[in-house]
Amino acid sequence: MTYKATKIVIITEKVIFDGVVKIIEELGASGYTAVSAGGKGSRGVRSSDRPGMMDVFGNVKIEVITATREMAEAIADAVAARYFEDYSGITYLEEVQILRPHKF
Amino acid sequence: MTYKATKIVIITEKVIFDGVVKIIEELGASGYTAVSAGGKGSRGVRSSDRPGMMDVFGNVKIEVITATREMAEAIADAVAARYFEDYSGITYLEEVQILRPHKF
Amino acid sequence: MTYKATKIVIITEKVIFDGVVKIIEELGASGYTAVSAGGKGSRGVRSSDRPGMMDVFGNVKIEVITATREMAEAIADAVAARYFEDYSGITYLEEVQILRPHKF
Repeated sequence: MTYKATKIVIITEKVIFDGVVKIIEELGASGYTAVSAGGKGSRGVRSSDRPGMMDVFGNVKIEVITATREMAEAIADAVAARYFEDYSGITYLEEVQILRPHKF
Repeated sequence: MTYKATKIVIITEKVIFDGVVKIIEELGASGYTAVSAGGKGSRGVRSSDRPGMMDVFGNVKIEVITATREMAEAIADAVAARYFEDYSGITYLEEVQILRPHKF
Repeated sequence: MTYKATKIVIITEKVIFDGVVKIIEELGASGYTAVSAGGKGSRGVRSSDRPGMMDVFGNVKIEVITATREMAEAIADAVAARYFEDYSGITYLEEVQILRPHKF
């Protein structure tokens, strides 16, 4: 038995990780998962070419499962408004089917 | 040319990684991918705030591509039954389109 | 306001990371995200059992958001043709909804 939920993915610079998490929590999400990432964006910002090399200039990929699409969009809008004039970032949504919603 | 498959994602505590992999393999999956993760769950369990800081208290995000949805659900059910009374975890499914199924 | 895009995921051996990125860039993608990964594939190639242990034998999960499905498939085909006779790898596509397309 599964039910549909929305996963929002935020890939941005690691230096603003704490601020992004604060927004996620303030907007009511019950949890998040964060993974250290490297990459290169459309503005030519390259960080941490070697993904195994973790450093303060690297990126972070943050995933949040939200019960409603509205919460997902609210988080994305707030993060973009607060940070994406000054920092690189992309956010996208995916539809997922949750199997174990209550234990994490 | 692509064909549909199911991806199961298991995000849980790193200390049970070996046991989760054992279940995945016993239930017939041909492979998995694991990424070190930090995060915070709905029970307030926070681990590895800084995703670049890998440690034994951190989380792991395990992805398994399965040929059938039944196998994906069997893995999720077995992991939950064995571990999720005692450890934090979430599992969800996503539909993906496989391009190179046979080489990994 | 969102629009649909295709995410291509390439999971392969870290030793060919630079070459895969070169293909991604040559085929016109504006960016990518890379995460260090461990795992085991269908050919029994196991690398970096402990996902927190980054090493040269590990895997990498590369994600690329492409504006068109054609670009996603072109990248996958080129990577497979160049590398997947000699290296382990899997590629798959997911449909995503982009919220912030222009800033990363």
